[in-house]
Formats: sequence, structure tokens, C-alpha cells
Amino acid sequence: MSNEPERVALLTNPRSERVRSVVSLRRRAVRSRRGRFLVEGPHAVRELLTHVSSHVLELYLTAQARSAHPDLARRGGDARVSLYECTEQVLEVMGESQHPQGVVAVARPVDVSVDAALDAVGDGYAVILSHVRDPGNAGTVIRGADAFGAAAVLISSDSVDLYNPKVIRSTAGSVFHLPISVGAPVERILGRARQAGIALLAADGSGGTPLHHAELTGPHAWVLGNEAWGLPADVAGDCDHRVAVPIVGHAESLNLAMAATVCLHASCMRGRT
Amino acid sequence: MSNEPERVALLTNPRSERVRSVVSLRRRAVRSRRGRFLVEGPHAVRELLTHVSSHVLELYLTAQARSAHPDLARRGGDARVSLYECTEQVLEVMGESQHPQGVVAVARPVDVSVDAALDAVGDGYAVILSHVRDPGNAGTVIRGADAFGAAAVLISSDSVDLYNPKVIRSTAGSVFHLPISVGAPVERILGRARQAGIALLAADGSGGTPLHHAELTGPHAWVLGNEAWGLPADVAGDCDHRVAVPIVGHAESLNLAMAATVCLHASCMRGRT
Repeated sequence: MSNEPERVALLTNPRSERVRSVVSLRRRAVRSRRGRFLVEGPHAVRELLTHVSSHVLELYLTAQARSAHPDLARRGGDARVSLYECTEQVLEVMGESQHPQGVVAVARPVDVSVDAALDAVGDGYAVILSHVRDPGNAGTVIRGADAFGAAAVLISSDSVDLYNPKVIRSTAGSVFHLPISVGAPVERILGRARQAGIALLAADGSGGTPLHHAELTGPHAWVLGNEAWGLPADVAGDCDHRVAVPIVGHAESLNLAMAATVCLHASCMRGRT
Repeated sequence: MSNEPERVALLTNPRSERVRSVVSLRRRAVRSRRGRFLVEGPHAVRELLTHVSSHVLELYLTAQARSAHPDLARRGGDARVSLYECTEQVLEVMGESQHPQGVVAVARPVDVSVDAALDAVGDGYAVILSHVRDPGNAGTVIRGADAFGAAAVLISSDSVDLYNPKVIRSTAGSVFHLPISVGAPVERILGRARQAGIALLAADGSGGTPLHHAELTGPHAWVLGNEAWGLPADVAGDCDHRVAVPIVGHAESLNLAMAATVCLHASCMRGRT
């Protein structure tokens, strides 16, 4: 039997306190103070409700989205989420995206501690982001980490906020699929990884071992740096190896998401022929 | 001896006819009618002046950019380009990007015919874009094609305009490094490629030969489809093989640029161990 409530509150006023409260979660300071973040669009909200339903607090749907995606209200009901039906206008105001497709959820943070993320590595591999500032790149790397079987992602305190709506959107739901730690200084992440016996591989466009010669058999972590200037020298120096994706042609470099995609794919394929 | 003119015209009025004429090149219809496109930022403009200098018509620089990048005005002078110094305000109005970094150029199209692009393939490989609509994705694929040694890129008539400023910007200069054809229907591109003995590989997330088992030794072309729904069935059916990048985890799929990056990297690495 479905737990979807028979009657749900209807929100029609885009200037109401509740709507403004949701909108305010676009701001990092508000997210951080209130311990809440936004998830937009039917696909991402479905992944949220499927994988971490206990973290979901509020679900906002237009009538059209509610009828197009009947599973969302049902899953929300099962998870005892507060459900609201909104006018198109209200939902447009709420969504950070231009196309939230009639669906917005408010959830509690899903990140884990550095130790919990590293414990998940086992014989696998992790991805560490240091000084990554572009939300789309961070989200795409998380999506790649999920697709290519990374055990965890660790985002340093000097990187973009995981809960930035653009990051969440770019992960296409992958943010709910694997343990992700946030907020620790990169030095602490590298130190703890080293203690855990995880080899640290600095992805470095400027040189080092070519990727196809890199040793990827044991537990390891890819350390990815800033979009424009890569890893700071001290962070790269803290790593065990520098690894480069060889490029040909006149291209100056790969962008961060492309380089990360190739490195993570290589880790995923190790041992396969 | 440098050919940089001693005196250059100074543009101070953001509403002048010349400035409005440059701004109008953001519109596809205007670009198409006038046979001109915009290039923004010091890096992309330097690549333009280095690789296809005969196509450059006008160069707009702020005083600050002119002094920060003295080579640009010098190369422009060598190429007999019309050079203009602009106020910051004029340059901001001209740039489609929020950060043109004080440099905008106007150039004639650089694309080549389908046959010229395919002739460049030899024993190498090409990239064919069909129904690719997102400018950032198209530009990133061109950047990857350059970095991973593709011989040519062919963009079908149903895809985004190569000369969209966002596409040009996303290529990071790679658009000037390899032959690119635009505007031909995908059926004609595939037909000509087949006649040229080029194996057609449809990159298809939904199935087919896993990438690591794909035959990449002879001349081939990756056929990449729409961001949301991939290749139309008839286009995929016109290809010789469907090839998938295997993914693990719960990720539903890779985005287009990620899948393309992995496929192009595989073509680049064939024969290497």
C-alpha cells in the first residue's frame, strides 16, 4: 500500500516564507548554517529518494510533474517526506536551474567523514579533489567516479561546495551513489590516505609517468587539482607519483573533467583485457 | 622588424556602428550571412593568429591586454589585420563571454569540405558529431579530438553551429588545429566516409561491443550523438559497429564529452603498450 498522503499542501505564493526559505538554500552560508541543500529535477530527486531516502525532508512538485512521475510522491510518502504541490511559478522561483522540470527536494547533507570515505577504498581507488573551483567540473568528476567504480570521493576544504546546486545537478544523481567527504584540508586527506596505505597519484598535465605506464594495481587515489593551474607544488609533492595523460596534436592540455575521465577509466579497466 | 602599426584606431563608444557590427556576430544568422565569426580571449586569439593567420580580419584589444600580450598586436601586424584599441567598456560589450580578457578577434570561417576532412584521415581516425546541441560539449569534443590525435572533425548540419562563441571558447584553440567540416547532412558524411574505407563506430551507451574489445586498428570514425538521446536509430544503423564505454556503479550513463574523451583516448593509444 502506498503511503502517499491523500491531501498535500498547495503552494501558490512565490513570495511566501516557505518558498523564500527554499530559495535561500542557493546560498552556501545558508546551506551550511541550516544543514540543508537543494536537489532539482526528477532524475536526481529519484536517485535521492532511492539511495538516501532518510535524508530527504521536503519534496516540491508541480501538478504536472506529480502526474508525470507518480513514483516520486509515492517514494516521498514511503520516506515520510513533507510533500507540497506547487504552481509552475512557485517551482520556477525555487529552482536554481532554469529547468528544474517541476521537481525540487530539500535534504540533509549526505557527506561522510574522511575516515569513512577512505575505509571504503579497500583494494579499490578513490578520487581526491583539491582546489577544484568549477561546479560543473566537480560534478562531472563525481559522475565519472561513480561510472568508473571509484570507492569514494574526497573534496578538500579549498574546493567548491559539494552542495552548490550546480555541482549536485552535474553529478546526475551520482552524488547519492558513493561516499563523499567534504571540508577537510587537503593535507589532512593526503596524510590519512597515506596512513591507510593508499598510493597517491597526482594527475599532472605537465609531466610524470605516462598514464599507460602507471601502476594502478593496489589501493590508490587520484589527486586532481585546479582547472587553471593544477595542483599546488606542495600538494603534488605530497603525492607518491605524478601521472600524465599523454596528449598529441597542438592541444595545450585537457580540461580537468577530461583528464579525470581518462584516469578514472584507466583505474576501472585495470586487470581487464 | 615588427609590422605593428605605430598608431591604431581607438574605440571608445560602445554604441558605435563598428562595435554593434562585432556584437551582431553572436547571432548565427548574421555570422552565416556575413561569413565572419568571433574569437575571444588571448589564448584562443593567439592560436588563431598562429595557425590560420590569413583568416583573421580584425583584432580588438584593451590597452591593458595589448601591454600584457604584446605578441598579439605584433602577430596581428604581421598578418595585416586591422587593429583597434578599445576601452574596457567597449570590449566588455563585444565579448560574448563574461571574461574576454581584453581580446576579441573577427575572422573568416576556417571549416573545410567533407571530402577534405575525410582525406586527412589516412590511417588515422575522425570524429563525426550528429545532433550534438550543447556548445560546451561540441567544443570539448573538438579539444579532445585535437589532444588525442584525431585527423579531422565533421559536424553534421543538425548539430550546434561551430562558430557559436561558446563552441569556439570551449575548444580552447583546438578549433584552429585540425580540419573541421560543417553543414553537411549526417547521411552524406557517413556515405562519403564509407566510400573512403573508413569504419564507422557508433558510440552508444546502450550497448554494443565494449570499448576495450573494439577494433581500432584501421581508419575509423567515432560517430557521436545527442547529449540526451544519443544517435537516431537510422544513423546508428548506418554505422558498422556499436561501441559502448562499459560503466560500473549506479551511474546511469556518461555525459557525451566524457564518453567521447574515453573513446578518443582509446583510438590515440591503439598500438601503444
